Amino acid sequence: MASKNRLIYLPLGGAGEIGMNMYLYGYGPEGKERFILVDAGVTFPSMDGTPGVDLIMPDTAWIEARADRLEAIFITHAHEDHIGALGHLYGRIPAPIFTRAFTGVVARAKLEDHGQDVDRVHVMEGWPEQVEVGPFKVGFMPVAHSIPEASGLVVDTPKGRIVHSGDFKLDPDPIVGEPHNPAMLREIAKGGVHALMCDSTNVFSPLPGRSEATLKADITALVKDASGMMVATTFASNVARLRTLAQAGVDAGRSVVVLGRAMQRMLGYANFAKVLDNFPPTVELEDAQDIPRENLMLLVTGSQGEGRAASAQLARGKYRGMEMREGDTFLFSSKTIPGNEVSVGNIMNSFSEMGVHVVDETAGNYHVSGHANRPDLEEIHALMRPKILIPMHGEHRHLRAHAELAESKQIAAAIAPNGTMLDLSGDAPEVVDNIETGRIYLDGSRLIGAFDGVVLERIRMATRGAVVVSVLLEDNRLLGESWAEIMGLPDTSAMQTGLQEAVETAVDKELLGAKKNRLSNDEEVESLVAKAVSRTCRDLVGKKPVCKVLINRLVDG
Amino acid sequence: MASKNRLIYLPLGGAGEIGMNMYLYGYGPEGKERFILVDAGVTFPSMDGTPGVDLIMPDTAWIEARADRLEAIFITHAHEDHIGALGHLYGRIPAPIFTRAFTGVVARAKLEDHGQDVDRVHVMEGWPEQVEVGPFKVGFMPVAHSIPEASGLVVDTPKGRIVHSGDFKLDPDPIVGEPHNPAMLREIAKGGVHALMCDSTNVFSPLPGRSEATLKADITALVKDASGMMVATTFASNVARLRTLAQAGVDAGRSVVVLGRAMQRMLGYANFAKVLDNFPPTVELEDAQDIPRENLMLLVTGSQGEGRAASAQLARGKYRGMEMREGDTFLFSSKTIPGNEVSVGNIMNSFSEMGVHVVDETAGNYHVSGHANRPDLEEIHALMRPKILIPMHGEHRHLRAHAELAESKQIAAAIAPNGTMLDLSGDAPEVVDNIETGRIYLDGSRLIGAFDGVVLERIRMATRGAVVVSVLLEDNRLLGESWAEIMGLPDTSAMQTGLQEAVETAVDKELLGAKKNRLSNDEEVESLVAKAVSRTCRDLVGKKPVCKVLINRLVDG
Repeated sequence: MASKNRLIYLPLGGAGEIGMNMYLYGYGPEGKERFILVDAGVTFPSMDGTPGVDLIMPDTAWIEARADRLEAIFITHAHEDHIGALGHLYGRIPAPIFTRAFTGVVARAKLEDHGQDVDRVHVMEGWPEQVEVGPFKVGFMPVAHSIPEASGLVVDTPKGRIVHSGDFKLDPDPIVGEPHNPAMLREIAKGGVHALMCDSTNVFSPLPGRSEATLKADITALVKDASGMMVATTFASNVARLRTLAQAGVDAGRSVVVLGRAMQRMLGYANFAKVLDNFPPTVELEDAQDIPRENLMLLVTGSQGEGRAASAQLARGKYRGMEMREGDTFLFSSKTIPGNEVSVGNIMNSFSEMGVHVVDETAGNYHVSGHANRPDLEEIHALMRPKILIPMHGEHRHLRAHAELAESKQIAAAIAPNGTMLDLSGDAPEVVDNIETGRIYLDGSRLIGAFDGVVLERIRMATRGAVVVSVLLEDNRLLGESWAEIMGLPDTSAMQTGLQEAVETAVDKELLGAKKNRLSNDEEVESLVAKAVSRTCRDLVGKKPVCKVLINRLVDG
Repeated sequence: MASKNRLIYLPLGGAGEIGMNMYLYGYGPEGKERFILVDAGVTFPSMDGTPGVDLIMPDTAWIEARADRLEAIFITHAHEDHIGALGHLYGRIPAPIFTRAFTGVVARAKLEDHGQDVDRVHVMEGWPEQVEVGPFKVGFMPVAHSIPEASGLVVDTPKGRIVHSGDFKLDPDPIVGEPHNPAMLREIAKGGVHALMCDSTNVFSPLPGRSEATLKADITALVKDASGMMVATTFASNVARLRTLAQAGVDAGRSVVVLGRAMQRMLGYANFAKVLDNFPPTVELEDAQDIPRENLMLLVTGSQGEGRAASAQLARGKYRGMEMREGDTFLFSSKTIPGNEVSVGNIMNSFSEMGVHVVDETAGNYHVSGHANRPDLEEIHALMRPKILIPMHGEHRHLRAHAELAESKQIAAAIAPNGTMLDLSGDAPEVVDNIETGRIYLDGSRLIGAFDGVVLERIRMATRGAVVVSVLLEDNRLLGESWAEIMGLPDTSAMQTGLQEAVETAVDKELLGAKKNRLSNDEEVESLVAKAVSRTCRDLVGKKPVCKVLINRLVDG
């Protein structure tokens, strides 16, 4: 029985969250499956839950332990939530990488940044080319999204054909990348689709998605009507939007300048890969100095309010010599991702204070999503007619709603958040295991586990403050007085004894009153000190700080 | 010249932000004006900018310095962003307080909580009653909002009539509180309105506001169709919505239970003030245990994802013996305030994991705002026909848009964010001063200034980690070895020396290599240690932590 071949699916990231995509497919006898990994994305930290963290990525421990059985890595497209972790994690999972040409340029750059071998990246054409990797035959299925050569995957397995949607929308004119191609999808589905793994991001959007091309008229009108300098921001990696915006600028007779490293880098990749041959001409910043501001249009990074990006720097003052003035217009051609509303709002308000006219997507047709809305998902279900549908790329509520949608059409579905191992061998998905998954943080220069306690300690310090007490003991007696360092706690008023002095007095009293043999034990000393610190801080400032004790023991002689 | 009487307006909170309302009006010769203060609200902290803070309120320093000239405090209504700071700050600005009856009940409770004299609260009727306070005659102008007895103010001054809108909407049937009364407003405006200070919260909402009464049908249908237990959340202080929800529950044949202290307290105040005589019957939690869950409807706190409220606790497991089960329905009858999307989303996802059907405002007509939308603002402008319009209660971009709206109708307007002192004596507003304003934090049991550095230090610890080093010096020489405590930093791998040991070694080396006379100076020692800590942490973990040094000097003898 144990030697029966099975087809498994195991999301390591992206299922139960939006971002940080990473999915495993396996085939073979239990414990001997051969695997392919799809995508290696990141998600972004927040002060709320991950202060000080630089990037968040899926924990690859499970597949690392089976790295000898990992046949290949496929990257669907070059958005950070699908490729951002590749460089960081590749040393742990060094399998051959397959991509399309543009994604390959980005993948090689990521590997190079981390001193990895760029020749591990193999570039493929779009469908019908397929590559054989272990028990699978895999091909890239071009889809419309918002970046060049975005693709789903066709994964042929001994149990039938799997289609992995990647990020997609049904856009007949996505401006950049291939349009939605129902004939090709129908052709792919002709022999039957055993399972469709499908993007769920926009399952709560009730209306059909709009085409990138629908933005042209409104954006062009806005740019034409703007009086001063025109500035627009969007995701640096939304190459389609960059083209739409740049074209509007040129059509309005403005010189277009691209500001911000992430955006310049992305356009550089696209040029290098020759997927942007019809991108409107841009001018260098140096050459823009002599152009009157009413003839300028800047495309800038920082649509999510990122503190170090061009938008935020313009909001605070200058960025590389450019500054906003009264009468200028600033367009957010983007959706604010939940959690970023306050940062984005702050930038809008700073511009408002300068007299800059701020426009966002609510004011008109200035942004469309790159993902399939609910009716589009229904259309793709109908087109592919899969036996099984597994919602991916969504929070739990998105996965649930998408599964319910499929089931309402008599398609077998399962909600499979990260770590859920599904056996797809039969006509309906079956949960066969639950793997412990997690997150890896890039923290400064190191990768740490989400449960290392490091970030939790930071959150505790940030919400409670911290007190560090140093005591000097000689012969198990307090020598001199203790010294407390108070961090992130309000001092008590000058009328009273300050908090530091109060803590020190309380610690001294606690230690002087303790039996000598208790002070021979470091843990006892720590506990006595912590008690005194906690009591004093609660009474004087109403807080229970993180407390650390440094014990110096003076050794005789 | 200096003795000429002038009429001034000075927002201390709520102008340039949503929340924390506090406005001053003054009349008299410059430097001798007599003042009234309108509202004393709070705003809520976030991990982003104010970790560990409990509440945020306006800095009253400016009016404290002139407290002898403060004639009275008026509270427009009992929402926390208008009354929440009253108890905390009253000791600093102890003037007579005027309110309507329901607001008075809440105001007294706030004063009582802080040991203040509840008899300072004077209750007034709605318009046309007026009270004379210094140079002003002030009356409460009933408006429709979402809480009993919400009011604007009519402030008669020697320079003419000022109308302070408070929070309002044009609701003919607000379910709780007085309906929008255009006849009364017209009557108030008949003799001319010199200046209208007007709520700007919803200036970006392009459609006319909807009535609270429009929710009844959809909410009742939802509750009737729900199979398991029905649970709904909204703002605890949205008494109108509580009534709408409770009535839907009763109409659907369910017993209604109110869960969560803030909500019970608010309904208690309303009952005490006899402003809720037609609130549907509710049952106590104890009596609900025997009622089948399909006959129960819970109204719970925590619509903004607050970690300690009933919603979040139900999402984590049980709350006071109640728990959600598969098939139950949970309704967010509320708008998620920017910044709370992630917390609210987390709760939705937890419920989704339990199999609970989650419904929010996007799914139907389950929420309406309590504020006037853009066309409503235009209607009120037309109704009151003020000479001057000053937008208040809004972020800077709201104030700007509202001012532009007024100017487009030939009404003189000014953008006056917190601290902007306007002279309203003439036909157009004139900026005569800019006062330094700020925020006061309730932090544990203490009120601290926003710029005390305490919270900044917490943010630094949270993003960079902290290292505390204790060194023992004897005769200006390092005695023994230094001891480092590492907080919130990743340790280096077991293969290498741990971070703590590396820091200690670096500090020892730095101090042992330093000239003896440098070590006689504490600042020099701190600087040497900080240098060693910074270099080591940067090299090993890529972080620059907060560093503190505890110096123990062993005194001979």
